[in-house]
Amino acid sequence: MSNVIPERLTALRSLMKEKGMDAYLIPTDDFHASEYVGDHFKCRKYMTGFTGSAGTAVVMQDMAGLWTDGRYFIQAEQQLAGSTVTLFKSGEPDVPTVHEFLVKALKQGQCLGFDGRTVSAKEAQELADKLGKNGVTISCREDLVGEIWTDRPALSCEPVMELDVKWTGKSREEKCREIRAAVKEKGADYFVLTSLDDIVWLLNIRGGDVPCNPVVLSYLVMEEDEILLFANEKAFPQEVKDALARDGVRILPYNDIYEWASAVEEDRKVLLCKAKVNSRLVESFPESVTLLDQENVTLLPKAIKTPVEVENERVAHIKDGVAVTKFIYWLKKNVGKIPMTEISAGEYLDNLRAQQENFMGNSFDPIISYGPHAAMNHYSATPETDVPIEAEGFLLADTGGQYLEGTTDVTRTIVMGPISDEQKKYFTAVLRGTMNLAAAKFRYGCRGINLDYLARGPLWEMGQDFNHGTGHGVGYFLNVHEGPNGFRWKIVPERNDSAVFEEGMITSDEPGYYVEGEYGIRHENLLVCKKAEKTSFGQFMCFEHLTMVPFDLEAVDPEQMNRDERALLNAYHADVYEKISPYLEEEEREWLKEATRAI
Amino acid sequence: MSNVIPERLTALRSLMKEKGMDAYLIPTDDFHASEYVGDHFKCRKYMTGFTGSAGTAVVMQDMAGLWTDGRYFIQAEQQLAGSTVTLFKSGEPDVPTVHEFLVKALKQGQCLGFDGRTVSAKEAQELADKLGKNGVTISCREDLVGEIWTDRPALSCEPVMELDVKWTGKSREEKCREIRAAVKEKGADYFVLTSLDDIVWLLNIRGGDVPCNPVVLSYLVMEEDEILLFANEKAFPQEVKDALARDGVRILPYNDIYEWASAVEEDRKVLLCKAKVNSRLVESFPESVTLLDQENVTLLPKAIKTPVEVENERVAHIKDGVAVTKFIYWLKKNVGKIPMTEISAGEYLDNLRAQQENFMGNSFDPIISYGPHAAMNHYSATPETDVPIEAEGFLLADTGGQYLEGTTDVTRTIVMGPISDEQKKYFTAVLRGTMNLAAAKFRYGCRGINLDYLARGPLWEMGQDFNHGTGHGVGYFLNVHEGPNGFRWKIVPERNDSAVFEEGMITSDEPGYYVEGEYGIRHENLLVCKKAEKTSFGQFMCFEHLTMVPFDLEAVDPEQMNRDERALLNAYHADVYEKISPYLEEEEREWLKEATRAI
Repeated sequence: MSNVIPERLTALRSLMKEKGMDAYLIPTDDFHASEYVGDHFKCRKYMTGFTGSAGTAVVMQDMAGLWTDGRYFIQAEQQLAGSTVTLFKSGEPDVPTVHEFLVKALKQGQCLGFDGRTVSAKEAQELADKLGKNGVTISCREDLVGEIWTDRPALSCEPVMELDVKWTGKSREEKCREIRAAVKEKGADYFVLTSLDDIVWLLNIRGGDVPCNPVVLSYLVMEEDEILLFANEKAFPQEVKDALARDGVRILPYNDIYEWASAVEEDRKVLLCKAKVNSRLVESFPESVTLLDQENVTLLPKAIKTPVEVENERVAHIKDGVAVTKFIYWLKKNVGKIPMTEISAGEYLDNLRAQQENFMGNSFDPIISYGPHAAMNHYSATPETDVPIEAEGFLLADTGGQYLEGTTDVTRTIVMGPISDEQKKYFTAVLRGTMNLAAAKFRYGCRGINLDYLARGPLWEMGQDFNHGTGHGVGYFLNVHEGPNGFRWKIVPERNDSAVFEEGMITSDEPGYYVEGEYGIRHENLLVCKKAEKTSFGQFMCFEHLTMVPFDLEAVDPEQMNRDERALLNAYHADVYEKISPYLEEEEREWLKEATRAI
Repeated sequence: MSNVIPERLTALRSLMKEKGMDAYLIPTDDFHASEYVGDHFKCRKYMTGFTGSAGTAVVMQDMAGLWTDGRYFIQAEQQLAGSTVTLFKSGEPDVPTVHEFLVKALKQGQCLGFDGRTVSAKEAQELADKLGKNGVTISCREDLVGEIWTDRPALSCEPVMELDVKWTGKSREEKCREIRAAVKEKGADYFVLTSLDDIVWLLNIRGGDVPCNPVVLSYLVMEEDEILLFANEKAFPQEVKDALARDGVRILPYNDIYEWASAVEEDRKVLLCKAKVNSRLVESFPESVTLLDQENVTLLPKAIKTPVEVENERVAHIKDGVAVTKFIYWLKKNVGKIPMTEISAGEYLDNLRAQQENFMGNSFDPIISYGPHAAMNHYSATPETDVPIEAEGFLLADTGGQYLEGTTDVTRTIVMGPISDEQKKYFTAVLRGTMNLAAAKFRYGCRGINLDYLARGPLWEMGQDFNHGTGHGVGYFLNVHEGPNGFRWKIVPERNDSAVFEEGMITSDEPGYYVEGEYGIRHENLLVCKKAEKTSFGQFMCFEHLTMVPFDLEAVDPEQMNRDERALLNAYHADVYEKISPYLEEEEREWLKEATRAI
């Protein structure tokens, strides 16, 4: 792979010279700021050879750089070998950020180029502000990589399905009415929505244009009487088109959004979120148009699952729990007896999920990581890294499925054979955190920052911790990472995951513990927020475990858990047995009985 | 009292007419935004008859209103009877805030008057912005109440003492050098400091010009080579004057600060905090002067106690603990046998504290509240409200002392006789909260909002709560309420009490539970923040109990506490016994042994 990179860089540099661009920025994003991107959008991979899910490239005449974070340092070093691309390790001391680098590298009169569709308006503005001070200009109207990428994959065009109201609990018509009212209240004439999960949520449709995210490549404009959906019409079966048309949704060509924007009538007000809408689209509006830059009004109603969605999620999680429980049983029964590797075990689990009714695919690339691999936070086995699973230590399985009844995301750390007392100690500490956080009861108004200590406390007591957030919002048969709820001990404004918990929000609860080169532990359940009692002090809230899979008691040290903590675990396990056992074979059921015994 | 109010209002209204003011605002503040104010500053009390510690009056030709909060509704209603002053219950539904009222009441061309020395520059600016939109002007240069208040008490002029470096751990010279460096770094020519605790902290002096706050009425200006202290020179003994002079502190007349401000040279930069400096002072600067509005650079170093201060605080808290422990013993031994009331018991405790070496007075008005009185959060007995303490129920004692070795603030809820199971239940829940919060171990970077759940969790589990913050910062032989640290579950920016915990900060830990008309429970210890271990994850922090007084085991239900919680309480009680018992009489010691037994 890396042999071709210098050639590609040469072609790009030649084009940059022609266009008068002194640096060219290549992010990982598609035109919608999606978390994962389809093959058509993998320009950064094309130009550098680095395949990780996060990274930004900068190319100048005398350098080419790739910025990525700690998850990918090793992988990036390997993949960049021989490419002439320099690795910038984000977050390491003395390593400039991409912006800092550009501010320093570009001089008065020079020009930074990028494809404005792949950079949010907010970031483009920040860049323009920082560089503008030094007399550096920006050119964001051209996709130079597209010009040299001759065998570029076409835009995805997976078939679109309609999601019946029995799955969503709210019709498209009702959602559109509510959102339209919200847009009107903001004083806007148009609402421009370009984040794909918001679009398909609003329209009660699903697709498959982004890996693991059942979304449809599209831009949406809500007008007073009509909704314009800029998308590839070929992806829409006739009955879906008809249904959309009945609700006032008109399908227009995907790329026509830019033309629509440039033709907006004078002095109109457009509501949009500059952190999510790409900069080229924002630049397309005439100057007389007022842009109301606000969080998408769809964000909160999407996060607050309807009662129907919550009830469906319970069903999805039982089906998913059956698959994962069977998987754990299979692992424990067969490890050391039949060959199994990270990849083959993952396939076995995929098959178990696929046997569940209404299974629609994985909600993210499964993480089946054995031994030291589990200490790498975002490890996902490839044929090059795959290892046999043996009858010792921990296997960490962080996987999830998409069902018509909802999205799952579950992590279990499974004992494959002998483990050390230290491993038990941390397994138990992390488990106390998972269970204590799930048991929180709190005043309405709390955010993740109020509760995060519950998850970290058992580790912090020992001077230990884990270097990731404790939990993220989860969509309904949609993106596995969704705002604005989450658990985190420091508020990070740009992550937008510290909202007040509302009834119906689904959040993951996934503390962990990692020893580099040795092992990793993570326990993850999805929790749905519910109302508890209302008293003279106000509304109290609590969580319900959606995930129904046993935690491995072989690694639990009951001595470390006080009475209350043991009671929480025992109650959860009784619930798991009750909900999962009816769907198991006899020997699996017997095993589960023992695996969920009270301690 | 109330009979004279209408007359005073008439006089004020006549003056307002003369001056062209249509409304006159009378806050509770002195010229330094102090929490408590000396008699000279009690204009609001003079004009309304209401004696509470918080409240704002507004007088117009056809109305007079007093705003105060829930703590004072009953008292205010009584004290305003016959005064013609209307009570506005702040925080009740449909009750406008003072600002909302003024915005609505004042029309185009009208004028609001107030003594600008009693309103912060920040609030005055907010008022000017809100009223200016309606064409209403502000006049803040005249003290109309002062003109009609013929027998107004003089400004306090209590003697000033120097606080030796053996108490503070840092010399005045060193503090001034550090603060001067911070001022320079901000690019300021002058630093104007008007909050009294910051001034006396910086200068290592103490006084007695505000009740319970050992401060000196003064304004301070830090110049490049000199410090100007605007104060009443008569309050300074010669040796203090000499010592101050040696460190470059020049004493000037208290009121000359305004003249100094108006004479600041063109284009100078002045660092000050508009939330704390009064509006008349801010208005006094020439327009060419740039005001750098920032939090006082003294705030954080004042809050972070020196190692010497922390060690002294431990001593202060043992002395204070001896007094309070003796008090509890005396109460329990004598209740029902000798007459005692809230006031007489308070006097008994005052005497016990006064017997301790280096005792300098109370740190706030003692709250000794019996039975239903304890449900009123800021009750402090007066001859009119005083009740006998009988051999049943709870007595709540929230008191504190000033010592050369530091400031104390302790609350105990003491069993006087039979109590109900419900009382035990909540006593135990609140105690679990107090102890669990104190036991927190956490990553450096946590704020009160990260930890507050630990204190409220046991109540929230039951759908209960308490309507006040969980804890406040405490000064060193200084104000008992001090920023910027605190415990609170929602960040309230204007309170400025959600700072990251730093080693040496002292914070109260005081959850409670209150049943109106029946009883109140509060358990309060002061905690000093300390460094725990530093690991690969970073610096961990923890707290140490400074307060050393037993919690009443007669009201503890051990069944409600898990193993870990009982261990925390037992360890604390063992510490209390070890530290306090050497200073007790034999029978007190025997009682304490039993009162601190392991459960």
